[in-house]
Amino acid sequence: TSSGVFLLQMGWGDLGAFGEPSKETPNLDQMAAEGMLFLDFYTASPLCSPSRAALLTGRLPVRNGFYTTNGHARNAYTPQDIVGGIPDSELLLPELLKKAGYTNKIIGKWHLGHRPQFHPLRHGFDEWFGSPNCHFGPYNSTERPNIPVYRDWQMVGRYYEDFKIDLKTGEANLTQLYLQEALDFISKQQASQQPFFLYWAIDATHAPVYASKQFLGTSQRGLYGDAVREIDDSVGKILKHLQQLGISENTFVFFTSDNGAALISAPKQGGSNGPFLCGKQTTFEGGMREPAIAWWPGHIPAGGVSHQLGSVMDLFSTSLSLAGLQPPSDRQIDGIDLLPVILQGKLIDRPIFYYRGNELMAVRAGLYKAHYWTWSNSWEEHSKGIDFCPGQSVAGVTTHTQEEHTYLPLLFHLGRDPGEKYPLSFASEEYQRAVEHISGLAQQHKATLVPGQPQLNVCDQAVMNWAPPGCEKLGKCLKAPESDPKKCSWPH
Amino acid sequence: TSSGVFLLQMGWGDLGAFGEPSKETPNLDQMAAEGMLFLDFYTASPLCSPSRAALLTGRLPVRNGFYTTNGHARNAYTPQDIVGGIPDSELLLPELLKKAGYTNKIIGKWHLGHRPQFHPLRHGFDEWFGSPNCHFGPYNSTERPNIPVYRDWQMVGRYYEDFKIDLKTGEANLTQLYLQEALDFISKQQASQQPFFLYWAIDATHAPVYASKQFLGTSQRGLYGDAVREIDDSVGKILKHLQQLGISENTFVFFTSDNGAALISAPKQGGSNGPFLCGKQTTFEGGMREPAIAWWPGHIPAGGVSHQLGSVMDLFSTSLSLAGLQPPSDRQIDGIDLLPVILQGKLIDRPIFYYRGNELMAVRAGLYKAHYWTWSNSWEEHSKGIDFCPGQSVAGVTTHTQEEHTYLPLLFHLGRDPGEKYPLSFASEEYQRAVEHISGLAQQHKATLVPGQPQLNVCDQAVMNWAPPGCEKLGKCLKAPESDPKKCSWPH
Repeated sequence: TSSGVFLLQMGWGDLGAFGEPSKETPNLDQMAAEGMLFLDFYTASPLCSPSRAALLTGRLPVRNGFYTTNGHARNAYTPQDIVGGIPDSELLLPELLKKAGYTNKIIGKWHLGHRPQFHPLRHGFDEWFGSPNCHFGPYNSTERPNIPVYRDWQMVGRYYEDFKIDLKTGEANLTQLYLQEALDFISKQQASQQPFFLYWAIDATHAPVYASKQFLGTSQRGLYGDAVREIDDSVGKILKHLQQLGISENTFVFFTSDNGAALISAPKQGGSNGPFLCGKQTTFEGGMREPAIAWWPGHIPAGGVSHQLGSVMDLFSTSLSLAGLQPPSDRQIDGIDLLPVILQGKLIDRPIFYYRGNELMAVRAGLYKAHYWTWSNSWEEHSKGIDFCPGQSVAGVTTHTQEEHTYLPLLFHLGRDPGEKYPLSFASEEYQRAVEHISGLAQQHKATLVPGQPQLNVCDQAVMNWAPPGCEKLGKCLKAPESDPKKCSWPH
Repeated sequence: TSSGVFLLQMGWGDLGAFGEPSKETPNLDQMAAEGMLFLDFYTASPLCSPSRAALLTGRLPVRNGFYTTNGHARNAYTPQDIVGGIPDSELLLPELLKKAGYTNKIIGKWHLGHRPQFHPLRHGFDEWFGSPNCHFGPYNSTERPNIPVYRDWQMVGRYYEDFKIDLKTGEANLTQLYLQEALDFISKQQASQQPFFLYWAIDATHAPVYASKQFLGTSQRGLYGDAVREIDDSVGKILKHLQQLGISENTFVFFTSDNGAALISAPKQGGSNGPFLCGKQTTFEGGMREPAIAWWPGHIPAGGVSHQLGSVMDLFSTSLSLAGLQPPSDRQIDGIDLLPVILQGKLIDRPIFYYRGNELMAVRAGLYKAHYWTWSNSWEEHSKGIDFCPGQSVAGVTTHTQEEHTYLPLLFHLGRDPGEKYPLSFASEEYQRAVEHISGLAQQHKATLVPGQPQLNVCDQAVMNWAPPGCEKLGKCLKAPESDPKKCSWPH
């Protein structure tokens, strides 16, 4: 059975099926109606790179190295001056699937490091069309190169130069290119009757948000909505393609997000986290609870809904299971196999760990969530207008200083209070009982945790995308400055 | 064609179909899947009595008298010391439907006045089982009588005395009684082949929230969720009953709410307004945008979605249209006939007026909403812990003083910003264009408005439910105090 994962930045509340009031995602809503909706599904970090590393390794970022120790509880990622990336010691999903004869393709943003040793084709992927980093820019090529777009081993151009994004109108045809790549890859695999793993990791809803001309102005929600509509349309076309090729019953497809909607970019470039608190960068529900849909016609009962506590890391274990493979036994794997949940409606008891960098901020078990640390962002950042919780403020919860609650965690019941507004009374029996249980899980987790070597500590202008492989052919090599490694600065 | 209206207090975000994360309303979701979901549907007031008066008259509360002039922009309703009620000069939907041979029944909360001249059977209803006021209590019968429950002309008992609610556990079997009333009435009408209008206006989700024993503890959401589940189950049984009797294709059914979720009662007794700002008592979206579903098998295409700006007042005009009747031509009717929207997918251009008491606070046209006044509640009330926007605070928007913006309204684009967090820049061309249009509508509305005689100004302990008709038989008459009419006090 082949696997496809759609991964992008979108908030829990961005889909019609999840209550977005414009209800403009007919294809994703249809995918949910034909498949299974996960209402309690989480990413592994409130930021993109660590979540993606977690998805592909089945392991928490604190284990696979995608975190920083430069500061306490800081979100870190892989900008183009990052020195680190995915360590060779990590086993990635495509590396493992290869053993079962899979062909693996990544379309879109890799984000696990852009230096040669971190290249996706060195970590199990057979094909790549997309970029190693976020598509920020446009940059001045003397100070900062534009992000390259790779086809397999070599770059084929750069964002803004060869792959245009009109920052004024938001127009770019990249989602159409990424869609065509996916359709072609699927056709090729179907023709060769080979199982495949397709990781469709597109970036249109990440600032700077973009959409193709035919979608511009079509959404009630503005440019962000236009991008969502184009993605929705693309997902519909990919699923239809699987059906038309007659391989939909042999292809497990999952749609989810790498972090909550970036409220800091709202309303023009940011989405919605529905009724949840705050957004991307935070360990409140808005930062890490994600829209999630499993689709596998003929196997998953249509219109299913699951309250299984799920994680992007489960896609690692589930995809292995679909390929008849066992997860590696020489290391701790955090993902679980969701097939019993999806096919037999089981509920597996497991906690969710909410990390921010090197700190376990919160733990969810059942419907309870205990916060051991709270932080939105610093007063200093906040005073500059950087707000991860616009319009929201819960006293003692959305704190602007890092507040420790280790011995008296803030406890929420996410069924009665999904918005994390009403901490339970410390004196209540319910509090005592739930905290005893959750804190036991937290302690056990911490006691047995072996943190990986942190990969996101060192930055160096010299490692930026000055001269990616293939630049000579294109005449697009830039001169790198002298190496000057420094501690990366992570303000949040 | 018969009509049924389910009206209760519930927030936009309380249904699975509208993104409630526990997704515990399978019957309402099924109703939506078989019918049409209205995503931009409004009540006529952020408080119960005025909304209900508007539904039954098709007219804004400021026209039908359901408002107060005791203070500026104050929400008022019909507690049991209210002297006023629905004026005889108002024509109610059931009065008009009678002319087309309908039998009309109200089950649940009337709320248009409880003195004899306001009795629902004097205003077009043929049958009544329920209460005239909110089921607050229990009261001490020497100081304040418990609210009566009527069957038709006479009371058959009182809340807490004969119709128990256990305030500690939340147990009460009233929804089951109200369900059985509905099923019996429908059976009777089917047997006699008479068209009917059933107004199922139950109160289980209004504080004090209650549920039957079989539903207690069944929801992830606590007691409020238990009540929602019981209502969902009841709606499912009523729709199934219509189908089993073979009259579902002759019965138009609508589900909606009289105001947004009461966040002040959250988390135990209050619901969810999804991604919207604030709740009941306010003219932000959370106070007045409502869940709404139209159901009419064989006529409404299954799975439809409408962005028509709708109002509870439209149920007046739509029900008349279904009965082949014209709305009265001697008065201004604010409701519109939704049948072209429902049956032909039309979109009718019309504004939404957001009133709080005697003040036009805001106007929506298309996707734009202009606030001419903003107010959550006073600092004085807020300092007592009364909070209509818990965890939410938008600078300059959720104000604690009444702020006038008549000449420079706060403008929001509800597509890009459903949460009313980002007012458009006064300097933008978009602002100028939209405000010119909306302010034109507002001025025209105000210039032609003929306010009704305000009914909610005078309160008197002597008019409370001391000795409702039928009390003698039950030995439940209480002695009324001396009449002492006063201006009612409306703090919000």
